[in-house]
Amino acid sequence: MSIATTSGRASFTPERLKQFFEPKSIALIGASDKSIWSIMVNGSLRACDFPGAISYVNPRSETVHGQPTVPSLAAIGTPVDLAFVMVNTNLVLPILGEMVTAGVKNAVILAGGFAEAGAEGAALQQQVVRIANEHNLALLGPNCLGYLNYGHNVGAMPGVPAGKLRRGGLAIASQSGATGSLMMTYATRQGIGLSAMISSGNEAVLAVNDAIEYLIDDANTRVIAVFMETIRHPQAFVRAATRARAAGKPIVAIKAGRSEASARVAQAHTGAFTGDDKVTDALFKQLGIIRVDTIEELLTTADLFTKTGIMAGKRIGFMAISGGLCDMGADIAEVSGLELPAWSTETQQRLRDLLPELGEIHNPFDTTGAAVNRPELLAQMAAVLEDDANIDVLVVPNSYPEDGAPAEGFSKNMLTLIDQHVKGERIPVLIPENSAIDMQPGAQTFLDATGLKTAPGGMAETVRALGRLAAWSQAQRASGARQDAVQAVTAITLDGDPRGAWSEHQAHAFLAQHDVPVIPATLATSADEAASAARELGFPVVLKIASPDILHKSDIGGVKLNLRDEQAARDAFTAVMQAAREHAPDARIEGALVSPMRAGGVELLVGVVHDPNFGQVLAVGMGGIYVEVLKDASLRVLPIDHAEVQAMLDELQGKALLQGARGTTPADMGALADTIMRVARVAQGLGDRLESLEINPLRVDGSQIEALDAVLTWRNA
Amino acid sequence: MSIATTSGRASFTPERLKQFFEPKSIALIGASDKSIWSIMVNGSLRACDFPGAISYVNPRSETVHGQPTVPSLAAIGTPVDLAFVMVNTNLVLPILGEMVTAGVKNAVILAGGFAEAGAEGAALQQQVVRIANEHNLALLGPNCLGYLNYGHNVGAMPGVPAGKLRRGGLAIASQSGATGSLMMTYATRQGIGLSAMISSGNEAVLAVNDAIEYLIDDANTRVIAVFMETIRHPQAFVRAATRARAAGKPIVAIKAGRSEASARVAQAHTGAFTGDDKVTDALFKQLGIIRVDTIEELLTTADLFTKTGIMAGKRIGFMAISGGLCDMGADIAEVSGLELPAWSTETQQRLRDLLPELGEIHNPFDTTGAAVNRPELLAQMAAVLEDDANIDVLVVPNSYPEDGAPAEGFSKNMLTLIDQHVKGERIPVLIPENSAIDMQPGAQTFLDATGLKTAPGGMAETVRALGRLAAWSQAQRASGARQDAVQAVTAITLDGDPRGAWSEHQAHAFLAQHDVPVIPATLATSADEAASAARELGFPVVLKIASPDILHKSDIGGVKLNLRDEQAARDAFTAVMQAAREHAPDARIEGALVSPMRAGGVELLVGVVHDPNFGQVLAVGMGGIYVEVLKDASLRVLPIDHAEVQAMLDELQGKALLQGARGTTPADMGALADTIMRVARVAQGLGDRLESLEINPLRVDGSQIEALDAVLTWRNA
Repeated sequence: MSIATTSGRASFTPERLKQFFEPKSIALIGASDKSIWSIMVNGSLRACDFPGAISYVNPRSETVHGQPTVPSLAAIGTPVDLAFVMVNTNLVLPILGEMVTAGVKNAVILAGGFAEAGAEGAALQQQVVRIANEHNLALLGPNCLGYLNYGHNVGAMPGVPAGKLRRGGLAIASQSGATGSLMMTYATRQGIGLSAMISSGNEAVLAVNDAIEYLIDDANTRVIAVFMETIRHPQAFVRAATRARAAGKPIVAIKAGRSEASARVAQAHTGAFTGDDKVTDALFKQLGIIRVDTIEELLTTADLFTKTGIMAGKRIGFMAISGGLCDMGADIAEVSGLELPAWSTETQQRLRDLLPELGEIHNPFDTTGAAVNRPELLAQMAAVLEDDANIDVLVVPNSYPEDGAPAEGFSKNMLTLIDQHVKGERIPVLIPENSAIDMQPGAQTFLDATGLKTAPGGMAETVRALGRLAAWSQAQRASGARQDAVQAVTAITLDGDPRGAWSEHQAHAFLAQHDVPVIPATLATSADEAASAARELGFPVVLKIASPDILHKSDIGGVKLNLRDEQAARDAFTAVMQAAREHAPDARIEGALVSPMRAGGVELLVGVVHDPNFGQVLAVGMGGIYVEVLKDASLRVLPIDHAEVQAMLDELQGKALLQGARGTTPADMGALADTIMRVARVAQGLGDRLESLEINPLRVDGSQIEALDAVLTWRNA
Repeated sequence: MSIATTSGRASFTPERLKQFFEPKSIALIGASDKSIWSIMVNGSLRACDFPGAISYVNPRSETVHGQPTVPSLAAIGTPVDLAFVMVNTNLVLPILGEMVTAGVKNAVILAGGFAEAGAEGAALQQQVVRIANEHNLALLGPNCLGYLNYGHNVGAMPGVPAGKLRRGGLAIASQSGATGSLMMTYATRQGIGLSAMISSGNEAVLAVNDAIEYLIDDANTRVIAVFMETIRHPQAFVRAATRARAAGKPIVAIKAGRSEASARVAQAHTGAFTGDDKVTDALFKQLGIIRVDTIEELLTTADLFTKTGIMAGKRIGFMAISGGLCDMGADIAEVSGLELPAWSTETQQRLRDLLPELGEIHNPFDTTGAAVNRPELLAQMAAVLEDDANIDVLVVPNSYPEDGAPAEGFSKNMLTLIDQHVKGERIPVLIPENSAIDMQPGAQTFLDATGLKTAPGGMAETVRALGRLAAWSQAQRASGARQDAVQAVTAITLDGDPRGAWSEHQAHAFLAQHDVPVIPATLATSADEAASAARELGFPVVLKIASPDILHKSDIGGVKLNLRDEQAARDAFTAVMQAAREHAPDARIEGALVSPMRAGGVELLVGVVHDPNFGQVLAVGMGGIYVEVLKDASLRVLPIDHAEVQAMLDELQGKALLQGARGTTPADMGALADTIMRVARVAQGLGDRLESLEINPLRVDGSQIEALDAVLTWRNA
């Protein structure tokens, strides 16, 4: 599904993006009473009350849509901020020529038939890109639907459901125009307010990252919902996401392609679990992007942020008339990573003052049928609960009034009372519907007249979205609290241009030289040298074949463990040499490495691999069976800071082992993170020359941390 | 939240349940023009066109709801199949008395204030139960909303949205009446058709299992959606669920209380991961109950079954106009356990015949914009795809026509064409909405006139539901294909009445006697005996203290490994005796067990614990760190058959280890399942006397399988 273009792209200034997305004048190219696109786009512009000038370009008709036309762009005479191009594929290049002639710099290109449609279309798109680069054109599309800048009344898109669609702080940036349209439909039915919807299509020039850059500066936008099939400009995307985070505008995103996750085959284990999608997961985590899978999750989570802002914590209070709803809410909350703390003694007392016959008072709080007969009581209770310092958000699901239904009056009365009693100042008090039904027009009108914070998607989707926002808020607070601790790294100078793989011996020496703790090792080239090295290191020792050509030493009998005296060391030397001759006759043999034998502790894998999109990716996993059988590893894109490394360790399934679960000494987590940072810095210092650096295992025994084995491979094979 | 009552309960015949839920005559007790309940229940009965007689019982008014009244139940004169009791709490007992006098056997009791409302209410409920048992009364409630038997036109429930609510094959059984009402609202908005909604409230007499029993026999019901806070009668529930499965009527269920999962503290490891909720998970899996968490998941999954039936497989075909939707559908499908196989060569050729310019043809199939201009093409393509033998279901999301929207005509045209071209005979062809929006009345009318299979909840919820149904279908086929292989187990006779815990020695001997393979072990009571036992067994050996009072032998230095000669065995005997004297001076010491030292292989934990609700629960997990750190274990309620044991092994995260992932000999899975079955049979033979039986580890090395250690504890402490 993903359309990968590697074309270079211009970067546009904030002023230019503002001109593009807030045009004072628009020219419709291909305006015609016979074109459904023209009819719809003109309709959208009118419906959105576009305040600027609209020129209708048509050389063959004097009027279109009841308006006078101009025969060409050049004939308009006044500046045109945006050309909206609705011509067929084969006419796009000539129109670009006209734009250049007329000095029009910005255009939306609707037509398909470019890179998405095979080799010929891709070649055509390359020509578009070339012209755009040459003349500094900013283009949206081709194969897009244009954009709606609702906050600025620019309906530069066919079929905007203006009138039905609410205004609000949520902006959508979607590569797929059709998907963006579906999102507008869902938003309309759920009463979710939008500031913008930008569809970027094939992204020949402008891409999602440009849309994000604009939306960060757009005062109407508070949160950005993204749909992507491919991250076209990884570095620019990282820059945009980083700036969004700094601006306090969260990005919630669907990045399609989880199922394409064809893990690349790599020599090192590290390669085996760095499928593109896992790297995307890691990157999003680092950038503070909330990743979701469905349109419903995307829009409800993003919209909810406009109601909650950055959450103070993950402690939720829940109350409902229905015990069943309380149960479901609690279960979903817990699975979503939220906590349901007990109410304070004061809260419980205040509730009992209101209703003395209350039994045990739990969170979630089941008001029971009492509230059906006394709605004011429920409202008063909600007002008590919102004061409880133990919670960070209060959720009170309720039926929204249904036009003409028997319960319409009951619902309106209940909501009015809640509105009167609840302040919603200290913490957000959210009123989702009980289930995922549409917000009906009558309900919307009624609710808009109150100060209540509704929440879209029904109770379950709301609680799940709260879980995502609470986790995001925590990460956001943590990232704000610490200085940007990512340090500059100095490049490492190497003798010559390394190729292929380095031997263990060479890798160990290199890492040790760059402050990564490595087990002592002596290279022995004879049985006698092995014996004396063993004596000096102290028994028992390990002896391994040393060769840059043998990566899986134990498979060929090239490793001898637990050698307890000099004779054993001698015999082992002879044995591994013979094994090498037998199983790897062509391998270059440097000798054998003698190291002290270590026992106990926990083994980790620490690796860095080169990712073609995002550069260096760091993997940290539990060693041995954990990484092989359970794929228990955490990834991040470099650079990274100390706190993020600790977060990686915290994500491991087997982290209890590091905390001493099996009677081992608990690991010195600070020292461990420090060591991993050193590995990362070595990789960064090597930069693009490095294919992979893998330490497996890194042995951790309390504060004793050292690499027992390491492999370095270079991109120049 | 859960209201646990342990009251005995009568079991009702199918005929009695039919009389209860398909009454020919109903008496409204507490009928009054002033009672909102009375107004609403009468309204529901009328709206549903109840075909039987309705008597209005009111001693103080001649007419109610415009109908003549009778002063008492006894005054009706003709048989009354069901009393609908709407009186206040304090009048319920007198009404039961009247029922007994008048010979009325069945009643719905609406009033709350019973077991859900504290000790006094619980006592009152006990009286209700006593009277019911004494006089063979079938009661629904108290604290319920009654029931709607839509298929038989019985609206014995306040507030039935008749007219809006569709008829269909989905029945709801909900302990919570309020939750059941919310479900009816969601069903109404989604166009989900119901056969019944039964709310069982406090379940003083009739419970969810009775509702299920009735619904299995109800010809209108094809699938049963359950909401439960507690499984009140575990054995009866298991019987009902088993019968539902045999009848081919799936149960989809929310069982609230995941977050209450307070794992019971137990001496054995097994106890640590048999929290009630995990046992519920296991039981549901065994019974073929599909467990979900939200109202939306419950109703969409259940409704979808009425469209798919038992699925032939998990291979999904997906096509859409929007590439974005295709991507999302594929991602959700994969996460939901579905497969997206490639299209056959023939299919690809047929698609190219329709549209020669098609590039690569994937599944999901993105029709691209071509279909917007040529809707018939899309319909023809769908007809090609449904013929592909590689898929078991085809999903074609589409916009449902929105009343008055610009795209209404386009949508109707597209759907009409699909209806004309697609047969939907070989496999189900499902047409969900693109997102989770309401089914609008106009769309419903239009779609009802077609033969299209719509699917509720939007595309994402549909695909997730398909994942659940595919897994359920697979289990259903497997369970149908094999004979019911659960064998009868003969009780094991024991000398005396065992108490507390048995020593390892005693446990090993007992297991060996019952055909569970156990490592050879010799009890030595002196250093000399230890030495000679070791010699006979062959070196190296292991020596362990033998005492029924020391369960964690290694913690006190009571285990010596890898003893290589007689002197080492002697020294080890002396050492463990001294360790026992020092650390466990009061323990009864039988001597020391000498066993051969085993190396290699994979270690499992196999345990059976007594669960107060469901009886014996079998746990199988990977040993060592897996069970301790990762809680990697699978549970089932006994009895169980061989195939189910293999399914348990298949669920383990670390199962790759059994398949030889670490260079070990792949385990003989048949022999392993056989051994686990033997352990289960021993536990069943011991029955209620057994508190727990735990083998940890069970060593597996190819087909060599034996218990290395075992603990037996008895319920008589």
